Amino acid sequence: MPPARGDHEARRRDVSEAVWRVLARHGFGGLTLRAVATEMDASTGLLVHYFPNKRALVAHALGVLFERTETRDRLEPPAAGLAALRTGLCDILPLTGDEPAMSRIWVGSWDVALSDPELGAEQARRYALSRDRLRVHVEAAQLRGELPAGKDPDAVAAAAQSFALGVVVQALLDPAAFPEERQLALLDDFLAGLACAP
Amino acid sequence: MPPARGDHEARRRDVSEAVWRVLARHGFGGLTLRAVATEMDASTGLLVHYFPNKRALVAHALGVLFERTETRDRLEPPAAGLAALRTGLCDILPLTGDEPAMSRIWVGSWDVALSDPELGAEQARRYALSRDRLRVHVEAAQLRGELPAGKDPDAVAAAAQSFALGVVVQALLDPAAFPEERQLALLDDFLAGLACAP
Repeated sequence: MPPARGDHEARRRDVSEAVWRVLARHGFGGLTLRAVATEMDASTGLLVHYFPNKRALVAHALGVLFERTETRDRLEPPAAGLAALRTGLCDILPLTGDEPAMSRIWVGSWDVALSDPELGAEQARRYALSRDRLRVHVEAAQLRGELPAGKDPDAVAAAAQSFALGVVVQALLDPAAFPEERQLALLDDFLAGLACAP
Repeated sequence: MPPARGDHEARRRDVSEAVWRVLARHGFGGLTLRAVATEMDASTGLLVHYFPNKRALVAHALGVLFERTETRDRLEPPAAGLAALRTGLCDILPLTGDEPAMSRIWVGSWDVALSDPELGAEQARRYALSRDRLRVHVEAAQLRGELPAGKDPDAVAAAAQSFALGVVVQALLDPAAFPEERQLALLDDFLAGLACAP
């Protein structure tokens, strides 16, 4: 690889890393060219080269969020079906390590998504994809007799995703009231409710 | 009331109304002195008088959100207990009329709340208060035999609030996939799960 292209790639990575740190600390409301420039000890003039306007910066930030979400280490489920559904939902919760930052950034991204139809549609599409992944686990759980067979698996997946997203919001807003063990207890109660409803 | 004070009150109301309209259309990310000034056909110079900095504007916007939420018309529950719990949760969902704007603004407020400890603590306090109101309905439902008596009513209230908040996010991001009837079906399935879990 010619040095110039390598530099360019490395610089783009530096920018994405700086964007991520700004998002984690200040959310989308604090995502400005100036904040990113300060974070990477560069000039705003340099960044205008990458982001001619605010929307370009925001769109890039969402791309960084999507990519990091897709490529993150996911928990390995112990089995298919209900265990995999549980693991998939745990993967959404701000439990340990890097998770709180990623969840916090996702929650912050909703404000942007809801004010920009194109960015919002892309977000909606991704949430639909992740509901599809949950639905596969629901269907497997129904086949294994772990969940009632009569329920529409799309509805169960949508309910499960809704529940997990709501716990994310509550746990981020009030981590003292929603430590890891409480988030997991709420999740397990919810799954118990799925398992017994007729 | 002397004309000057009346004018002052009226002007403050105009500002709050303009802030609300900016929030509904552009979210907290779009909440700037310039946007509010444009919305009320005033100068930014006038608004700097009210909001010396961005944080003051954001704090005021949250105050408008809290006040409108507290004073809005709420649905009348048909009975105490489970029916009241259901009504209280329906009140959160973006079902009809003015609701979508208020829900959208709440979701947008989370980005701000998560980047400012003081504003975040106030939000957390309000969510805790609304969990308390739901808990009262849960306890009544348990006394009426509508919900299992052995469950911790705080946990049930937290679960119910989480579920409703998650449906709000999904319905706002993807209104085509989550029309009113689907939101209500998801809610009723969730309540059925609460009623039957041991």
